[in-house]
Amino acid sequence: MDIQSQIADLKTRLTEIEDLRSASAVLSWDRATYMPPGGAAARGRQSALLARLRQEKLNDPALGRLLDALQPHGESLPYDSAAAAMLRLARREYDRAQRVPPAFVAQLHQHLGESFAAWRQARPENNFALVRPYLEKTVELSRQYAAFFPEATHPADPFIEQFDYGLNTATVRAVFAELRQQLVPLVQALTAQPPADDSCLLQTFPMDQQWSIGLEASQLFGYDMNRGRQDQAPHPFMTSFSIGDVRITTRLRADVFSDAFYSTLHETGHALYEQGVAPELEGTPLAGGASAGMHESQSRLWENLVGRSRAFCEFFYPRLQHAFPAQLGTVPLDTFYRAINKVQRSLIRTDADEVTYNLHVIVRFDLELALLEGQLAVRDLPEAWRARYQSDLGVRAPSDSDGVLQDMHWFYSPVGGRFQGYTLGNMMSAQIFDAASRALPSLPADIQRGQFTGLRQWLTENVYRHGKKFTAAETLHRATGQPLQVAPYIRYLRQKYGELYAV
Amino acid sequence: MDIQSQIADLKTRLTEIEDLRSASAVLSWDRATYMPPGGAAARGRQSALLARLRQEKLNDPALGRLLDALQPHGESLPYDSAAAAMLRLARREYDRAQRVPPAFVAQLHQHLGESFAAWRQARPENNFALVRPYLEKTVELSRQYAAFFPEATHPADPFIEQFDYGLNTATVRAVFAELRQQLVPLVQALTAQPPADDSCLLQTFPMDQQWSIGLEASQLFGYDMNRGRQDQAPHPFMTSFSIGDVRITTRLRADVFSDAFYSTLHETGHALYEQGVAPELEGTPLAGGASAGMHESQSRLWENLVGRSRAFCEFFYPRLQHAFPAQLGTVPLDTFYRAINKVQRSLIRTDADEVTYNLHVIVRFDLELALLEGQLAVRDLPEAWRARYQSDLGVRAPSDSDGVLQDMHWFYSPVGGRFQGYTLGNMMSAQIFDAASRALPSLPADIQRGQFTGLRQWLTENVYRHGKKFTAAETLHRATGQPLQVAPYIRYLRQKYGELYAV
Repeated sequence: MDIQSQIADLKTRLTEIEDLRSASAVLSWDRATYMPPGGAAARGRQSALLARLRQEKLNDPALGRLLDALQPHGESLPYDSAAAAMLRLARREYDRAQRVPPAFVAQLHQHLGESFAAWRQARPENNFALVRPYLEKTVELSRQYAAFFPEATHPADPFIEQFDYGLNTATVRAVFAELRQQLVPLVQALTAQPPADDSCLLQTFPMDQQWSIGLEASQLFGYDMNRGRQDQAPHPFMTSFSIGDVRITTRLRADVFSDAFYSTLHETGHALYEQGVAPELEGTPLAGGASAGMHESQSRLWENLVGRSRAFCEFFYPRLQHAFPAQLGTVPLDTFYRAINKVQRSLIRTDADEVTYNLHVIVRFDLELALLEGQLAVRDLPEAWRARYQSDLGVRAPSDSDGVLQDMHWFYSPVGGRFQGYTLGNMMSAQIFDAASRALPSLPADIQRGQFTGLRQWLTENVYRHGKKFTAAETLHRATGQPLQVAPYIRYLRQKYGELYAV
Repeated sequence: MDIQSQIADLKTRLTEIEDLRSASAVLSWDRATYMPPGGAAARGRQSALLARLRQEKLNDPALGRLLDALQPHGESLPYDSAAAAMLRLARREYDRAQRVPPAFVAQLHQHLGESFAAWRQARPENNFALVRPYLEKTVELSRQYAAFFPEATHPADPFIEQFDYGLNTATVRAVFAELRQQLVPLVQALTAQPPADDSCLLQTFPMDQQWSIGLEASQLFGYDMNRGRQDQAPHPFMTSFSIGDVRITTRLRADVFSDAFYSTLHETGHALYEQGVAPELEGTPLAGGASAGMHESQSRLWENLVGRSRAFCEFFYPRLQHAFPAQLGTVPLDTFYRAINKVQRSLIRTDADEVTYNLHVIVRFDLELALLEGQLAVRDLPEAWRARYQSDLGVRAPSDSDGVLQDMHWFYSPVGGRFQGYTLGNMMSAQIFDAASRALPSLPADIQRGQFTGLRQWLTENVYRHGKKFTAAETLHRATGQPLQVAPYIRYLRQKYGELYAV
C-alpha cells in the first residue's frame, strides 16, 4: 500500500472510532434528556456495547501496524499539519489502549458501576461507611491502573495525562501550590469585608423567561443553533456528535435564576469551542477540545470573564430587567453586579464563586494524590477533608453529604486526573483573555455594546480551529506567547474583586 | 461447550445484534425529532456504521456454527418455548443474511441513497423523468436480490417473506383479489350517496390542546408513559429501543385536527403491541411485532375499530368538545362521527379513509408485482398508475406528484414487500377484534364507558406478549382460531358504513 492508501485506511479507522464515540454520546444525551425511566436497563447494555466496540477498534493490531508503517511519514510532515497531528494523537491513544488489558478495563468498569450505585444511596443517607469499601477498592484499582504505565513518576500521572496531556503531577502540584498561596489570603481579605447582598437573585423567576434569556445571551455570544440546541437535563453539560451538532443542556430552578443563566453561558463556552473547530477536521480524532483544562478555560471565559463582567452587565442587564420586571425592575445594576459576584466561604464546589472555587478543587487534587501515594487511608479521608476545608476555606461541613460525598467523581471513575482541569481552565481563561485583550484594544467597549464577534473570531483563529491538533500547552503558547502562568489569573481576581470589595 | 453455555453464547450474540439495531433506532429517532440541520452529514455516516456492524455480527460464521450445533436441541424443545422460537428466528435471519453478498448490499444501499435524493427533488417538481433511471435500476437490483433466493416462485416472495414471513406472492395476491372484488362495488355504492360533511374538522385547532387530548386518549388506551413518550416529527412513527422504551411521534397541523389525533391513536396501537411483549423476551430478537401486517393490525385496531367507532365517540367526544369548545362545542356527536368516517375517492393513500385505503394499497401491490415480473416497464408506470386509479378509485391524478411519486417506498427501498402489510393489517384488525368481542361480551359497553383495560389485556394475552415467538399466521390462528380471512373485515366495513351511508 502506498502512503496515500495507508492514510486513507487510517482515517477510515479513526473515523469509525470517533463515530462510535459520537453514537455513544447520542445515547447518553438521550438518557439525560428524554429517555423514559423504563429505558434505563437496556440503555446501559447498549451503551456498554458501543463502548466495547470502540475499544476493540482502538485495540486492533492492524491499527498498530498501520501507525508503525506511517511513523516515518508522520515525522517527515510539518509539525503543524493536520496529518502529522492525527498520527501523533492516534499513536498516543493506541499506545495508551495497549497498556491496559481489556479484562482489567472490564473489572474496573464493573466495580465502578457498583461503586456509583452505592454512592447514589450513600450521599442522601450521609453514609460514608457504605461507600468506604468501594472507594478503597477504587483507590487500589487506580494504583494498579497506574502501574501499567511504569514510566510514570507518580501514580496520578497516567490520569492527568489522559485528560490534560503534557502535564504531570509535579507540574500541576507546583502551580497549584503557588495559586493556593495567593488565594487563601485573598479569600480571607475578601470575606472579612461585609458580604454582598444577593437577595435579588433569590426570588421566583418564571422558567420560560429563564430559558429564553439564557438562549438569547448564548446566541449573542455566537452559538450557532443550526448546529446546536439546548435541552433540559438534571445536570448541565455540553456534548458533541460532530462539528455540525454540538448541544448544550441546562437546568431550570424557579428559585435560583443564576443557576440556569450562568450554566447556559458556561456550556455555551464549551460549545463555541467545539463549533469553532476547523470543518476539515470533522470525522477525525482532532475534532474536539485540546484538553479538559483548555475546554474549561473556554466555558469559564464566556461564563465569568465575559458573562460576570461589569461591561457585559452594562449591556445585558437591561435585557434581564425587561425579562424579569417584577424581580429585577427596581434593582440597580450595581446591586446585581455585586450579587452575581458574591464571594463567600462555602461547602459545595459547584455552588462556589469564582474566587473560592479553586480552593475546593485544590483540596480534592491534594487529597487524591495522598490517596494514590498511600499517604492517606480512605478511612481517614472524611477527617482529612474537614481539616483542609477548615484551613483553606474556614468552613466545616456538618455532614459528609456536604463534605467528601458531594462530588460523584471518585465514585464513578478512577481516583486521579478528574479535578485539576477545572482550575487549570480558570487560570488559562485569564491568560487567554489577556492575550485577546491585547490583540483587540476595543474588547471592553465591544462587550459593553454587545459585540462578541471579534472575541469569538480571535478565539476561533487562535484556539478553537486547531481542535486537538496541538496539545493544550502548545495551543496556549501559540495563543498567548507564554507557557501556563498563575499571574494573569491572580491579577484578574485581585483587580475585579479588589474593586468590588474595596480591599 | 454444553448446551447451556451454547444457549448463553447465542443469547449474547443475538442481544448484541438487537442492541445495535436499537442504538441505530435512537440515532434515527433523534434525527427525526431534535437533530439540528448541521448534524445530518455526520449522522448519516454514524448510522451507516452501526448498520454495518450489526450486519457483520449477523454474518459471523461463528453464529452459523452455533446455530448448527444447537439445531437438534431446538427441535427437541416444545414448539412454543421461547428458546425454540429464538433458535427458529435466528436461523431464519442468519440464513437470509448469508444469501445476499455484502458487496451487493453495499451497492444497493449506495444506489438507494441516490434514488431517495432524486425522489426528494422530483416529487415537488412533478418530474418522473428524473427518477425514472433510478427506479429502473432499483427494479433491476430488486430482481437480482430476489435471484439470491432461487427457491422463491416469484421475485416478490423474498421481500414479502422479509416483512410478512409465512406469506408469499400467490397467497397475498389471492386474498387481495377477493378483497378488491368486494371493495370496488362497496366504494361505488358508498360514494354514490351524498358525501359526509367534514367541515367541522377543517377549522383551526390550537396545537397545545391537540397535543394533550391525543396523549389523553393514548394513555386511556394504556400507553405507559414510564416506558414511552411522544415527540413531534415530520412523519408520525413508532420506534422501540427496548420493551421499557417504546416511543411515538406525531405531527401537529393547526388546520387538520384529525391528523395529529388519529395518528397518535395509530402509533399508540403500535406502541401497545411493543410495550405488551413479555418482559422475559427483552434483549432477544423475539421482542417486537410478529410481522409488518400484524403490527399494522394493532395500529389500525386502536385507531379505527376503537378510535373511529361510535362507542368511542360517545365516550370521548365530550372531552374533545371540552378541549375545543369554539370548534366543536355546538357540533353534534353524529356530525362529528360522520365527519371522521367520511368515505371519498381520493388520490393520496395516507389521507384515505378506512374503506378506500386498501384500494390504494392493492394498486401498488399489483403494480410492483408487474414491475418485478417484467410485465410492466418503468416508463409505462405513470400511465399504468393512472389507469388503475381510474378503474379502482374513479379518480385521475392531475400530476405524478399526486400519483406515482407520492410514496417514498419505491425510492428508498427495493421494490417489493413494503405495501401488503398495510392491508393485511386492516384485515387482521377486524378478525382479531371479532375474536376479542366474542371473548369479551361487554366490550362495546366498555368502550362506551372509556374502559379499555379488558381489551388491552386480551390483546396482550393473545397477541402482544408473544412478540415474534410465533409467525403472524400462527399468532393470528392462536388468537382467533382461524387462518387469515377476508370476511370479518368486509363484514365490519359493510355494517359500519352501510349504517352510516344507509346503503
